[in-house]
This record gives sequence, C-alpha cells and structure tokens, in this order.
Amino acid sequence: MNENILGIVAGVLTSISMIPQLVKVIREKNVEDISLLMLLVLISGLSLWVWYGFMKDELPIILSNAFAVLVNLSLLVCYAAYNKK
Amino acid sequence: MNENILGIVAGVLTSISMIPQLVKVIREKNVEDISLLMLLVLISGLSLWVWYGFMKDELPIILSNAFAVLVNLSLLVCYAAYNKK
Repeated sequence: MNENILGIVAGVLTSISMIPQLVKVIREKNVEDISLLMLLVLISGLSLWVWYGFMKDELPIILSNAFAVLVNLSLLVCYAAYNKK
Repeated sequence: MNENILGIVAGVLTSISMIPQLVKVIREKNVEDISLLMLLVLISGLSLWVWYGFMKDELPIILSNAFAVLVNLSLLVCYAAYNKK
C-alpha cells in the first residue's frame, strides 16, 4: 500500500477515535470515569507529534495530530464543565 | 531540537497517556463512561500507524504506537470484564 495513503487512513482513524468519547461525554454530562491525567499527557504528546510532523515534513502526521489535539481540548473543556468533584 | 529525540518524547507521552485511564478503570472496576467505539477505532488506527512506521522506517512511530496498542487492548479487556450492560 502507498505509505501516504496508509498514513492518512491511520491518521483519520486515530483522529476520529476520540469523537465517540466526546459525544458520549456531551450526551451524558458525566466524566467520572475519565482520567484527567490521561487527557493532559495525551494533549502534550499530540502537540509534540504535530511539531515532529513539521520537522519531518509529513502531512499525515501533522494533520491527524493537530485534529486530535482539538478533539482532546474539547474533551478537557467538558471535563472542567461536568466534573462534580 | 533533534527530530528523533522529539519523536521519542512525543511517542512516550502519547504511549503512556492511556495508562492513568487503565489504572483508573482497574481500580474502580467501572467503564460506564468509556466509549467502546472509541477503543475499537483507536486500536485500528494505532495498528495502522505501526505499519506506517515500518514502511517509513521510523522507530519512534513504531515503538510508541505498538506500546499504545498494547495499553488499549488491555483497556478493551477491562471493558469486556467490567461492562455491566
């Protein structure tokens, strides 16, 4: 398989993977079982991947991780809004 | 910054990000707020990233995604074990 197509498919899957989680949280307004530490570490790591993508000039890595940063930042906002503790 | 070091740091962060989530699930034995669809799409996407890493011969991509596949497979096993529905 062409490596760019493979990268794009992989990127789309990992990028959209957090969307069902975001929809579930918005619908149920409940974040009790979600780990805040997971979100913070994930957002930091994804941001570094975007940087890595720019250095290596690999568009699938830049786009998929930038999108994933946005989804996880939304999840973080929901976490702040819905967390009861 | 050296791009390989950047890739390794980014990889370590995104790889370990799901560990707090896994620990939380194992400790609380509760997966109610976790999206099964998220897990399935994520595992598929991460597996394709491992493949992409092999094609591009980029070790940070291979290692971090392979590790993330393992962590998320463990989360999937917990989901099956603790899901009450």
